[in-house]
Amino acid sequence: MSDAYRQLERTFARLGTIDEALAILHWDMSAKMPEGGSEARAEQLAVLKSTHHEMLTRPELGDLLDEAGQAPLDDWRRANLREMRREWAHARAVPADLVEALSRAISACETVWRTARRDSDFALVAPKLETVLGLVRQVASAKSAALGVSPYDALLDEYEPGGRSAEIDVLFARLEVFLPDFLGRVMEAQGPAPALPAGPFPAERQRALALRLMGVVGFDFRHGRLDESTHPFCGGTPDDVRMTTRWDEADFSTGLMGVLHETGHALYEQGLPKAWRRQPVGRARGMSLHESQSLLVEMQASRSLDFLTFATPLIAEAFGNGPWDAHALWRDSVRVAPGFIRVDADEVTYPAHVILRYRLEKALIEDRMRIADLPAAWNEGMRTLLGIVPPDDRRGCLQDIHWFDGAWGYFPTYTLGAMTAAQLFEAAGRALPDLGEQVARGAFGGLLGWLRTNVHEKASSLSAQDLLTQATGRPLDAAVFEAHLKRRYLG
Amino acid sequence: MSDAYRQLERTFARLGTIDEALAILHWDMSAKMPEGGSEARAEQLAVLKSTHHEMLTRPELGDLLDEAGQAPLDDWRRANLREMRREWAHARAVPADLVEALSRAISACETVWRTARRDSDFALVAPKLETVLGLVRQVASAKSAALGVSPYDALLDEYEPGGRSAEIDVLFARLEVFLPDFLGRVMEAQGPAPALPAGPFPAERQRALALRLMGVVGFDFRHGRLDESTHPFCGGTPDDVRMTTRWDEADFSTGLMGVLHETGHALYEQGLPKAWRRQPVGRARGMSLHESQSLLVEMQASRSLDFLTFATPLIAEAFGNGPWDAHALWRDSVRVAPGFIRVDADEVTYPAHVILRYRLEKALIEDRMRIADLPAAWNEGMRTLLGIVPPDDRRGCLQDIHWFDGAWGYFPTYTLGAMTAAQLFEAAGRALPDLGEQVARGAFGGLLGWLRTNVHEKASSLSAQDLLTQATGRPLDAAVFEAHLKRRYLG
Repeated sequence: MSDAYRQLERTFARLGTIDEALAILHWDMSAKMPEGGSEARAEQLAVLKSTHHEMLTRPELGDLLDEAGQAPLDDWRRANLREMRREWAHARAVPADLVEALSRAISACETVWRTARRDSDFALVAPKLETVLGLVRQVASAKSAALGVSPYDALLDEYEPGGRSAEIDVLFARLEVFLPDFLGRVMEAQGPAPALPAGPFPAERQRALALRLMGVVGFDFRHGRLDESTHPFCGGTPDDVRMTTRWDEADFSTGLMGVLHETGHALYEQGLPKAWRRQPVGRARGMSLHESQSLLVEMQASRSLDFLTFATPLIAEAFGNGPWDAHALWRDSVRVAPGFIRVDADEVTYPAHVILRYRLEKALIEDRMRIADLPAAWNEGMRTLLGIVPPDDRRGCLQDIHWFDGAWGYFPTYTLGAMTAAQLFEAAGRALPDLGEQVARGAFGGLLGWLRTNVHEKASSLSAQDLLTQATGRPLDAAVFEAHLKRRYLG
Repeated sequence: MSDAYRQLERTFARLGTIDEALAILHWDMSAKMPEGGSEARAEQLAVLKSTHHEMLTRPELGDLLDEAGQAPLDDWRRANLREMRREWAHARAVPADLVEALSRAISACETVWRTARRDSDFALVAPKLETVLGLVRQVASAKSAALGVSPYDALLDEYEPGGRSAEIDVLFARLEVFLPDFLGRVMEAQGPAPALPAGPFPAERQRALALRLMGVVGFDFRHGRLDESTHPFCGGTPDDVRMTTRWDEADFSTGLMGVLHETGHALYEQGLPKAWRRQPVGRARGMSLHESQSLLVEMQASRSLDFLTFATPLIAEAFGNGPWDAHALWRDSVRVAPGFIRVDADEVTYPAHVILRYRLEKALIEDRMRIADLPAAWNEGMRTLLGIVPPDDRRGCLQDIHWFDGAWGYFPTYTLGAMTAAQLFEAAGRALPDLGEQVARGAFGGLLGWLRTNVHEKASSLSAQDLLTQATGRPLDAAVFEAHLKRRYLG
């Protein structure tokens, strides 16, 4: 191991530490900050980000990366060097003034978007979105040249390292054939909604139940906490995970399933290898694997008759006011119905929301579509994919923050994550033949151990595809996801 | 205004922004962070601090400071330049490796101190404290040379810009003559403790009452919040003040008075001039003025029959279980008794605790005393000043974190703050002849307005002495504090 490599580790440790500080400040902004702190917080985030960018784009870093590559390195250090180079290439590709212009455009656009969404007024935000898209396309084109991939793939690569739209196209095309007919059959087969005890469900009791189940699944409270925020997320750092959720006193299951979802993200972060903390190779391997961990805990493990058999007595204890029936809770947790809003969508219709956004953002980045045509194209896509048309843009193309916030190339990772979750859970079930019985006893140690070994502890030492192939015996395969859906909804 | 000055404002804005990020991370560490996050948090703080130090000690800053001083500047910019130079001089005086060595020594010492205090075992921590003191003395000597003041004053200057021990000696000597005899007379005169309704006082009700009274005094909840922590403090930033407290269900008055104390700090921060945010001249003017603001709200305004006349119905409403009597609550709030612990001390005995620490830390910095002799010297000082001797070092020289945490030269600001508070409150009373009646109605607008104009909005544009002279007509005068004590306790 060369001096150059050692020097790089020191620099990237500093960079990773600044990222950690940013993560805590972001969490605070969503979960604790009073309204009047937002301007100062924006300054704090901007200064830390630009300090990070300056440090990462120093010219001497390129020489060190070349030099370090010439000496022999073990597997993890070689992978670390590869990830360093990846981060450096992304940062170097974009000139500082473009980074700054985009950052300002996003702030301006996001603010207007909040009003536009509330008033369902796409025209209000269209000019700002146009500006953001123009700058994002400049970024995509600069990164495309630097990374040697298409502009869209260059954006995708930020969230999904090594991800390629050519592969996504194949996977999504298959789902698009499978899902419409499947959805019709599920809707026919599922029968009426089960009757469940009515609320209100006091927030404090929901919270106590959620904390208890987080513990059951394996969340380490020495290294994390749960708070409330408008938009639930899992943030913070591997040693200090900050989960958030929100409580609806009329419906406890949304909050509870939300917590289990974020717990999946949290377990991934808490399971990353301590020896590589704050190094690029020590990070989670991209957004589709991250989403797979949340969906594995929520969709695969928790929305199951096994888990709800375990959880029903705890739910009854928390809320009283029964009778509580595991089978009814389970049927309720897997009910399917097409709707306008992605974040409320069930497992079967969710991919349609993602495929729509993926198609549209790709067309916009590749200049095959204009911003002005977005609302009509959105509604037409909803009609084709789900057979429903949003009555207004608030429930249509204004619903998600992503594009207005500069996150282009992110959407496909949700459905890649769902497919990955199904494939990992199937492999875990092969390794642990009594997994269902374990879950029905609230014993998550076996599953968590399998995930630790096969996913969490690998961090970014492998590509997502290689990791999945090692863990499950094959690359990502839509057939596994389809088999899961058939088993659960028509089984 | 020169380009050099403009460039300095940009650099110091970045530095001030990093300070803000550090303040939020510090608050989080005390109020929210799970135990297992401490190692990573230490890294985050260290990296941000060293980034700050590197930015502040860049050689070109000295040239810019010289150049900016040659062009004409208005009063506030000239003051800003003076404060920039002050921060720069403090940072430049100490070599980076000494900063780092001290930072490590403090971390090591603080950890051992926690055990040593718990076990009342001074010998355990003495070697670590010796190391800290050795490095602090190196810092003092380096800063002494750079600033042209004595080593002790060079340390004091960090907390109390322009503060000098020659002046403190005079003020404290006078108090030391006045207090022992005065204390005896107060103890004789005050009679038996008043009978008050017994608890428990549920934490949630204490919190609701505290929030209500914070609002009465003028705390702006758009720019701040209240949380719980083991050691109450007021942190965060002017736009986002983070106050903490703790609740004792057996005794509500400690928590309530603690909240009013921290609210005084918070009002100062929230009242700093927005136009100079994140610039050196826009900061609070040193620790004695800061402490004066907390003691003005707590000791001067709130521990008064006027305030408790207003607050008693609210206390009764919060806790029920009366009868609640304003006069009894007031007598309870100003009870005097010598004790071992500084943070529990009343207004009359508090200065003795401070004078003791000031004497000892000065002797240690000036190498007139050895660490090994500290416990005996402490106990002897307590005997002389307060007539009591701590039964163990836990209640003696191990009680405060300051020295073990590297804060030398801080202690005198507590009593300078108490004297300043008395002098400011007297001047406010002259400007607002019905101040007592206002407070008795819960109307704090007049007092807050006077403080905004005469203290908060001045920020660091003046020295503490000049600010006080402009606000009250004279420099800091122990006679005003003595007159206040006589009026309250023997009046």
